[in-house]
Amino acid sequence: MAAKKLRVIPLGGLGEIGKNMLILEYGEDLLAIDCGLMFPKEDMPGVDLVIPDVSYLLKRKKGLQGIIVTHGHEDHTGALPYVLPGLDAPIYASPLTQGLISVKLKEHRLRDKVTMHTVQAGDTVNLGKFRVEFFQVCHSIPDSLGLIIRTPVGVVVHSGDFKLDYTPVDNKLTDFRRLAQVGSEGVLLLFSDSTYVEMPGYTPSEKVVGESLDRLMGEAPGRVIVTTFASLISRVQQVIDAAAKHGRRVFILGRSMTDNVRMALDLGYIKAPEGILARLEELQRLPPERIVLLTTGSQGEPTSALVRIANGDHRQVRIMSGDTVILSATPIPGNESLINRTVDSLFKQGAMVFYNRLAQIHVHGHGSQEELKLLLNLVRPQYFVPIHGEYRHLSIHAQLARTMGVEKDKSFVLEDGDTLELDGEGARVVGRVSLSDVYVDGLSDIGHGVLNDRRALSRDGMVVVTVAVDRKKEKVVGRPQMVSRGFVEEKEWGDLMEKSQDIVIKALDHNGKLGLEAGAIQALVKEALSKFLYDQTRRRPMVLATTLNV
Amino acid sequence: MAAKKLRVIPLGGLGEIGKNMLILEYGEDLLAIDCGLMFPKEDMPGVDLVIPDVSYLLKRKKGLQGIIVTHGHEDHTGALPYVLPGLDAPIYASPLTQGLISVKLKEHRLRDKVTMHTVQAGDTVNLGKFRVEFFQVCHSIPDSLGLIIRTPVGVVVHSGDFKLDYTPVDNKLTDFRRLAQVGSEGVLLLFSDSTYVEMPGYTPSEKVVGESLDRLMGEAPGRVIVTTFASLISRVQQVIDAAAKHGRRVFILGRSMTDNVRMALDLGYIKAPEGILARLEELQRLPPERIVLLTTGSQGEPTSALVRIANGDHRQVRIMSGDTVILSATPIPGNESLINRTVDSLFKQGAMVFYNRLAQIHVHGHGSQEELKLLLNLVRPQYFVPIHGEYRHLSIHAQLARTMGVEKDKSFVLEDGDTLELDGEGARVVGRVSLSDVYVDGLSDIGHGVLNDRRALSRDGMVVVTVAVDRKKEKVVGRPQMVSRGFVEEKEWGDLMEKSQDIVIKALDHNGKLGLEAGAIQALVKEALSKFLYDQTRRRPMVLATTLNV
Repeated sequence: MAAKKLRVIPLGGLGEIGKNMLILEYGEDLLAIDCGLMFPKEDMPGVDLVIPDVSYLLKRKKGLQGIIVTHGHEDHTGALPYVLPGLDAPIYASPLTQGLISVKLKEHRLRDKVTMHTVQAGDTVNLGKFRVEFFQVCHSIPDSLGLIIRTPVGVVVHSGDFKLDYTPVDNKLTDFRRLAQVGSEGVLLLFSDSTYVEMPGYTPSEKVVGESLDRLMGEAPGRVIVTTFASLISRVQQVIDAAAKHGRRVFILGRSMTDNVRMALDLGYIKAPEGILARLEELQRLPPERIVLLTTGSQGEPTSALVRIANGDHRQVRIMSGDTVILSATPIPGNESLINRTVDSLFKQGAMVFYNRLAQIHVHGHGSQEELKLLLNLVRPQYFVPIHGEYRHLSIHAQLARTMGVEKDKSFVLEDGDTLELDGEGARVVGRVSLSDVYVDGLSDIGHGVLNDRRALSRDGMVVVTVAVDRKKEKVVGRPQMVSRGFVEEKEWGDLMEKSQDIVIKALDHNGKLGLEAGAIQALVKEALSKFLYDQTRRRPMVLATTLNV
Repeated sequence: MAAKKLRVIPLGGLGEIGKNMLILEYGEDLLAIDCGLMFPKEDMPGVDLVIPDVSYLLKRKKGLQGIIVTHGHEDHTGALPYVLPGLDAPIYASPLTQGLISVKLKEHRLRDKVTMHTVQAGDTVNLGKFRVEFFQVCHSIPDSLGLIIRTPVGVVVHSGDFKLDYTPVDNKLTDFRRLAQVGSEGVLLLFSDSTYVEMPGYTPSEKVVGESLDRLMGEAPGRVIVTTFASLISRVQQVIDAAAKHGRRVFILGRSMTDNVRMALDLGYIKAPEGILARLEELQRLPPERIVLLTTGSQGEPTSALVRIANGDHRQVRIMSGDTVILSATPIPGNESLINRTVDSLFKQGAMVFYNRLAQIHVHGHGSQEELKLLLNLVRPQYFVPIHGEYRHLSIHAQLARTMGVEKDKSFVLEDGDTLELDGEGARVVGRVSLSDVYVDGLSDIGHGVLNDRRALSRDGMVVVTVAVDRKKEKVVGRPQMVSRGFVEEKEWGDLMEKSQDIVIKALDHNGKLGLEAGAIQALVKEALSKFLYDQTRRRPMVLATTLNV
């Protein structure tokens, strides 16, 4: 009987940023780490969100020991409501992470159907053949964890999302002491966060942001509107602290921000002095210089409070001259245009806007090159798999590992689906689990086909021709009906349609009786019409031909 | 009779970056400055390029004295082939700028139909009531000019695109001495470049890029592939210099790069040592460490040589292990995804890729805050209009001008179309020329309507229903025909279509005979079907209903 092997199968987050999910497998036992979503990119029109393809897990769900969630950000938690009903596995997470997951599960009416186990840094749990110890990491959300996983073939360390920061908001540092201990015991495999591997040096401390917020709130002549991610609990704390210092009260706008702040207050992750948080009804009664509005919308999300304010269609808040708006976030790639539009609109209405290029009002939560080197140096793994990154990030991280002594053939730049196998002998990529992206749109998913059609439709629009066929008389009847959208200006269409109808009739005439089979008519019409329209316009609309039996 | 006034009318480049065009008008005389294009943003599917709306100029073309083009970049020259046939005005430009414009005009078979006048820094030309003096500015392309325009109401200074840089590739500095002289004579109005107003400090010198290219070419174990903008003539010179130093020969790939380099060599703007430029046929005969390939594709343009190489479908060049690729450009906002995809693909094929985050291999051509302050301080204008920027750039530039002594009510943050009037008494915005964006797609333009339809189609796809109506018998005949794309997966559509047809039939039945009017049938069908489909899917496809008379 062959010796058992440890298998590593990334289902999301390697090769594409977001929707993080990693599987460890030993014999019959499986462990899932994180279960996140990715927000749609600009070439995914109409898509609400993207989640990992868990069909591999569904086939082996009996062996699934649990889903460990390292921290409460959406790219690590967001797919849970979509995959949990099928997987039926317990969740292991820290209290704040659980709180944030619960908010999501309640929205999907799933809270009561899911088992959640609370774990803290220092805890160890046995999950089948895996013994998982949790250690504290510093990230841009409190209560983030890394993992030390003891498996039958050796120790695996998973960094989670982490950075160094000696002065974070909650004063909880990444536990490098524990990592050094484990490192000296010998580590088989390290998974480490690659998100900011392109950045030289060290990531600045959260403290810098606190100082900027403090200064801007002190200088602002009127109201201050701060926008950030709803899950950026530590930023909320910084806003509250700065507001308190400058005698301002804090109004929270938007459901996700309100829900998260309430939960974090309940759990003690946010501390607010008595009377600092105010209800929206009190907004009119306070002078502008005593007001801070805290809201989402830092990514220009069309339905967020900030964007509605910027567009002048928020029910309670309008921009006034003298307002200061602080975008305490950096753009997620792809969101730049939406954000720029929002900033421009705020400027036009007389606000002063501070965004990442103008002031240090955001630091990200991931380690830069020197921090990644420190981790590699402490853990000194035999094998290395960079995680959380697009392909170039993973490649550069593997190169960085080489400078820290991890040999080239012991670093594995994997993409989602690639299966890495480790045993006493070595490590090798043994295959690839076939994955297809899962695009959630409304009540169900769509695949590549529908997405490609949407892209094609958007490029040059479409033309639909319907030809009526009298089956009894065996002939085409009436004039072909045509509709078009997104193709040419309306004033051009009238003439072009007339000519197109003639082209279609001519094509059908030439065809004689042969053409009465629907497929043949459609192919004929489509070919003649596509050619004609391209010649006339140098555009290639999607041409669809149908027949209607009368 | 009222005193004559100077009017300033931006037709492009204010409020949106690119497609720069600015009009000065005094009495019957008009002067146009620049005539550029904007590449389409991600929310402009199918659009080839965007150009300024010149309908205002067309109405006054008899008074148009000329089009001054400050330098040879596409955002200042690119709309000429599209608007010149209608405008029929002479162009004033420096030799290199003319060379680049000629390349474009030849492509459009317009070269012989356009009058071009060569001007140099120091020259002065009389254009109706305007007397225009050209002064040297340093930008990321040689032969760039700024303008000192004497008008009957005072002196107007136009910065062009400029930066300070004391060590540019061609050693030609911005002529601050001349600006200081003009400034001390008294300047009515300054137009100044706002593109990089967000950046504190000074823009680094081109020299830094030269040093990086030199180092990377020295260290590269195999071939070096450098990609940049085809119009970045000075970067081409830097690549040639570095290649020469390291005993490499330079192969130029791609038509626009080849055309531009040939023209710049002819005009003496690029100097290449004997035998350094090589023909593609020689590629196989040289060892990798003696090869530099120079190409376009720094923005991930799908048809560029670099992207074809990255995708493995370039006829002559494939990536080999040991290749070094240098992206000597920064992403134009909106192009990030395309560029990232290209970089990832190059890494996957074994190349080492250097891009802007990993090495200083590009500096931009625009002044940062301290340089903009220097210009304001030398010119000391009475009135200020920031140009070349989105709204926030213009706002921030106006704030910067305030710190340099330009009073708030003498800075005008204009948007395209806003008409500013100046006379001996003062300056004021007097109205707005109505402009509509001109999106070039294939052989003609499209407007907002078509673009909005394309966006809607891409969001949730479309469903087209055709109902056959027998006019004689006054009844609907056959079963409604339906087609759909981009809406739901094919496997869902069959069932959904059946149900939808029933819904349509039911809606028509309820309507009785009333519904035989086409518009009424369409409205009825559209409403019933849209509601049904949303209930079933939570998506809102574009629903189009038509009738076909048989």
